[in-house]
Amino acid sequence: MKRLIFLTNDDSYLSKGFRALVELAREFGDVVAIAPDRVQSGMSQAITINQPLFIRQVEKSEGVEIYAFSGTPVDCAKIAFDHIFRERKVDLVISGINHGSNAAVNVMYSGTMGAAIEGSFYGIPSIGLSLDDHDPNANFEGAVEAGRKIIGDILASLDKLPRPLCLNVNVPRCEASEIKGIRLCRQTRGFWREEFYQRQDPYGREYYWLTGAFQNAEPDAKDTDEWALAHNYVSVVPVQVDMTDYRMLKSLDGVIK
Amino acid sequence: MKRLIFLTNDDSYLSKGFRALVELAREFGDVVAIAPDRVQSGMSQAITINQPLFIRQVEKSEGVEIYAFSGTPVDCAKIAFDHIFRERKVDLVISGINHGSNAAVNVMYSGTMGAAIEGSFYGIPSIGLSLDDHDPNANFEGAVEAGRKIIGDILASLDKLPRPLCLNVNVPRCEASEIKGIRLCRQTRGFWREEFYQRQDPYGREYYWLTGAFQNAEPDAKDTDEWALAHNYVSVVPVQVDMTDYRMLKSLDGVIK
Repeated sequence: MKRLIFLTNDDSYLSKGFRALVELAREFGDVVAIAPDRVQSGMSQAITINQPLFIRQVEKSEGVEIYAFSGTPVDCAKIAFDHIFRERKVDLVISGINHGSNAAVNVMYSGTMGAAIEGSFYGIPSIGLSLDDHDPNANFEGAVEAGRKIIGDILASLDKLPRPLCLNVNVPRCEASEIKGIRLCRQTRGFWREEFYQRQDPYGREYYWLTGAFQNAEPDAKDTDEWALAHNYVSVVPVQVDMTDYRMLKSLDGVIK
Repeated sequence: MKRLIFLTNDDSYLSKGFRALVELAREFGDVVAIAPDRVQSGMSQAITINQPLFIRQVEKSEGVEIYAFSGTPVDCAKIAFDHIFRERKVDLVISGINHGSNAAVNVMYSGTMGAAIEGSFYGIPSIGLSLDDHDPNANFEGAVEAGRKIIGDILASLDKLPRPLCLNVNVPRCEASEIKGIRLCRQTRGFWREEFYQRQDPYGREYYWLTGAFQNAEPDAKDTDEWALAHNYVSVVPVQVDMTDYRMLKSLDGVIK
């Protein structure tokens, strides 16, 4: 039987990266995609609680069905697995290909990774695939090549990998031929420091617009995803969902009585 | 010198839980609050990239300044630390008091916890405080009592606790007098399974509304936050931000080549 691959993203079903992913995923099985109907970048693991959501089919061809959904990326995954696929077994979730890196702490802000993490909650192997290039017309050749390789490797080893399984894959912004290889990494330590762009709107009201820069706390650490990207490697970070800080639990012993 | 406490939440500056927190925080120092100007529940670690944001002061009295901001809870924390407080030292971040539990995997969907986590990125001890009751008129007495105790304990031990420090505190829905104590816990394993409420709008279009139930994968585990809440204990889970699944890294060795 043919495999069933579920796709989503956060840049909407209209993005170039999403289209590249549809073509890539077709090589591995039937494709059903439910993607946001508009840009949902930076939406993290957000869910829509206080309003109704609408879905419409935007494409149906041999082995490919694409739906546009008015919710967040995580809403897309939820309606897929708790409504659309209740009777069908999905073999793999892929979210992307994102326009922009989700390495380091970006994993926590990213709607692309939010949806991939959510997919893993349903016991399905999930891959978030991102290219370190925000250009709407970015060149996805390297990301497609790396994605093909990693998807193949994961599908070949499904039986021996534990669940939940979620991978944060990031591809450097360079020619496909310049990519040096794929590295298993850990998440880089470091945080964003923002600068709020401050101006006046046409009515004289002050507004703020978020902008900033990532501060890498360990730029020389070769086992991190940021190091890999900076040196033209594809980074693969497995993502877990137990947020408990076990070391801090020990530090708190006797502090909170 | 008086301490400076930064407050935010996801239920907006108009919620009863936020007001209860303002009164509690005043006992510990000067209070500056930047809270969303409307309900932002379920917004997770979301940030606003694609639109301008507006801020306005809604209250100023002895030792208390409150601002309403048009962004997400994380945007509130970001503008606080990268704009408003650039010249002032904040001693503690408290987000809440949330109407509804953020125990277990809810930590990942919660805007209240998103803002608390963000606060910890700035090196400031951060507490997310939530009551297991969604009622807009919920009784916050128990949550205030527990919060007072935990804030006091943390402020008394700041020098010996490592950073980043972020606590996910949840208070059971019972009378304050029925609370049995405070327990250090780990995050319960388990995920939400949703049911999409499906109806037609006045124009005959089908819509979906997210609703669901948390599936506890380990209801008898006494070291979990869900067990604590179910048995009338306040749960305290320290939250970390390295999402790397280190055990999976080993499992992937040799799988991705």
